Amino acid sequence: MEYEKKIEDWLWGNRGKGTRFLQRLVQENSTRGLESGAQAVIIEKCRKLGLTLDIWEIGGEELTKHPAYCSDRTDFTGNPNVVAVLKGSGGGKSLILNGHIDVVPEGDENDWEHDPYSGYIEDGKLYGRGSTDMKGGSVSLLLAMEAIISSRIKLKGDVIFQSVIEEESGGAGTLAAVLRGYQADGAIIPEPTNMKVFPKQQGSMWFRITVKGRSAHGGTRYEGVNAIEKAMQLIKHLQELENKRNERIDDPLYDRIPIPIPLNIGKMNSGQWPSSVPDIATIEGRIGVAPNEQMKDVEKELENCVAEASAQDEWLQKNPPAIEWFGGRWLPGNLEVEHPLMASISHAFEKVKNEKPIIEASPWGTDGGILSNIGNTPVVVIGPGVTASAHDVNEYIHIDEVFTAAEIIAHTIVDWCGMSDE
Amino acid sequence: MEYEKKIEDWLWGNRGKGTRFLQRLVQENSTRGLESGAQAVIIEKCRKLGLTLDIWEIGGEELTKHPAYCSDRTDFTGNPNVVAVLKGSGGGKSLILNGHIDVVPEGDENDWEHDPYSGYIEDGKLYGRGSTDMKGGSVSLLLAMEAIISSRIKLKGDVIFQSVIEEESGGAGTLAAVLRGYQADGAIIPEPTNMKVFPKQQGSMWFRITVKGRSAHGGTRYEGVNAIEKAMQLIKHLQELENKRNERIDDPLYDRIPIPIPLNIGKMNSGQWPSSVPDIATIEGRIGVAPNEQMKDVEKELENCVAEASAQDEWLQKNPPAIEWFGGRWLPGNLEVEHPLMASISHAFEKVKNEKPIIEASPWGTDGGILSNIGNTPVVVIGPGVTASAHDVNEYIHIDEVFTAAEIIAHTIVDWCGMSDE
Repeated sequence: MEYEKKIEDWLWGNRGKGTRFLQRLVQENSTRGLESGAQAVIIEKCRKLGLTLDIWEIGGEELTKHPAYCSDRTDFTGNPNVVAVLKGSGGGKSLILNGHIDVVPEGDENDWEHDPYSGYIEDGKLYGRGSTDMKGGSVSLLLAMEAIISSRIKLKGDVIFQSVIEEESGGAGTLAAVLRGYQADGAIIPEPTNMKVFPKQQGSMWFRITVKGRSAHGGTRYEGVNAIEKAMQLIKHLQELENKRNERIDDPLYDRIPIPIPLNIGKMNSGQWPSSVPDIATIEGRIGVAPNEQMKDVEKELENCVAEASAQDEWLQKNPPAIEWFGGRWLPGNLEVEHPLMASISHAFEKVKNEKPIIEASPWGTDGGILSNIGNTPVVVIGPGVTASAHDVNEYIHIDEVFTAAEIIAHTIVDWCGMSDE
Repeated sequence: MEYEKKIEDWLWGNRGKGTRFLQRLVQENSTRGLESGAQAVIIEKCRKLGLTLDIWEIGGEELTKHPAYCSDRTDFTGNPNVVAVLKGSGGGKSLILNGHIDVVPEGDENDWEHDPYSGYIEDGKLYGRGSTDMKGGSVSLLLAMEAIISSRIKLKGDVIFQSVIEEESGGAGTLAAVLRGYQADGAIIPEPTNMKVFPKQQGSMWFRITVKGRSAHGGTRYEGVNAIEKAMQLIKHLQELENKRNERIDDPLYDRIPIPIPLNIGKMNSGQWPSSVPDIATIEGRIGVAPNEQMKDVEKELENCVAEASAQDEWLQKNPPAIEWFGGRWLPGNLEVEHPLMASISHAFEKVKNEKPIIEASPWGTDGGILSNIGNTPVVVIGPGVTASAHDVNEYIHIDEVFTAAEIIAHTIVDWCGMSDE
């Protein structure tokens, strides 16, 4: 029997077992600081598969002093990173399979139809926080490896499975894995792309702009300077900056995306009293970073935009807004479309789905930015699930897609790492 | 000796004693819920003057169900209203002298040079929260009455001194006094006008506008609708409404005021996460009400403005912003400049200061709106102290101005109420 058939048979023959495994993983709430329970489920599975385990608590100065380190978390005790290696016989290319175990908070539980950690199944969908982002994808990775192992396919190159923490909060888990020495000839991250193939990923970073005004009684508001009005002026300039930055994008991968690198105004707070002129306003947002851009250059461009806006206003000239780069920061990914890993994945995709994959650039950053920029590992993002469901209430994943993704990934592994002659 | 001279002599002869009385009053912190200590100082003084006292805790359905009642306070126990009457011999016009005892919170104590309740005196100024707004004015009222009583001047009309609570929070104290039956042929409120004469007062009311958006990931912000952007659209329309409303004002009293009835955007809050599209924004502000306007008409005009703005936007059309009229609400005052009380005050002013008073319209509401609109009592606002100092740190009042105001008010009382022939 051909290996493709063996993999297909094993996967679809074990649909029930694989689904229960995903369900068990979703049932472990792994929001920030609570990752250990879900990691234990992963570790148990990797032990059964006979993989070489590396389990460690991240931290230490090499990590926290690294320029790409971005976290406000001070304690990682008890919530380890997990790496599990399927050692090849040698002579093949290595492949990292990276998934994050942390999930974003469930929000208001009352907005959910079922318990956010139920793993409830209905009409071929499995519900729960993290089902799509990205426990479904991580299960695809483990199913692909199990299918290969169970089919007694021996590989030349190493397969390095990673279940990392902290992706949703700046990528410290993957950075720690890179700094621990995990690099490879290629990497797949099965974030929810709806099975589109993303060789490039938009990076992003957060900013906070603080605008001063001058307080006054609302009845004599002309004696004050309204910080909300000044903030609105700045936002208009930021909107123009977004236009300008997006007009520059000519990568055909972005052809179907209305705004390739959005600048999002996510928060605005000002004022304490309806009848007082507010004397301070803060704006928080995220600016998208194109695959071919450097973070520093984008910072500079936004800072220049604010400076130019301020130059046009007497008050802002004298009271220049303060800009902070705080919190989230995701490096972009920028793999050339012609990279051999792209060919390998596309080929596997066609074999399984009988059609060509859609190749695009992702609208969000992933740990791929760290793997590629810091770890020098070429990264492609492809996985089951749709972005829209990711951070939403009633998050779900189509169970079949998890298995289809597993099949595509399994074929890619065999093709990329090579079958051993043994 | 003429009575004018007697009053003058008494007042300036008792400058030290009067100043210590003001100091003692300022030293009693009378922020909301803590009015009793300062009221006790007032009551003690009124007893010594032999006035007929009426001390009561406000409340009851007649008050709280009154259309002009505006308060979120549920317990008035222990912090009474005080009214003290100097009964006339009959046949003269009555006069209400109204001052509020409540003061706004002191804010950050560290921003004050001296303790906010020190009553510290330096260079002829007395410092402390409430010194200007409006314990200085209330002391002017009591000094005027004491000067008349000490000079053995007998009056025909009644003088009704009021020390009310709740002015800074919507006027429930003065409303309670009106409902208790206190009305008169005229009223003086010595709020800090810097000794300008205000026959008209701007009213105001608070509004809250809630604007919906649609949440989305910041990286695909085009899938969402940004509530901040929609709120900014509305604010632009509100700014135009302010222009339109102020262009209509042709009262010469407003000639020197840049924006007679300002619409102030005092607060804006939206968003929870820099990289999410915010799905709700709230704007809070106050809209000025011209002396000749009805509150209901102004509400309607703002509501129409929001409706028209929404009609021009597909999203807002489907998701109309919600408007609430909440919290603060101050009725305007609208006394004709030719009213006899104006003549009486102007005459007294000229006698004391040897110049004509400046007559203007106030940029803020006072309890005068309730006295005139609900109590049918003609009101003029004139008092020592400047608005700018009122709610500010290091609030102070020029002590001499308290005595000058007392002199003008004493002359007005004698002229308005009439001297008895006895």
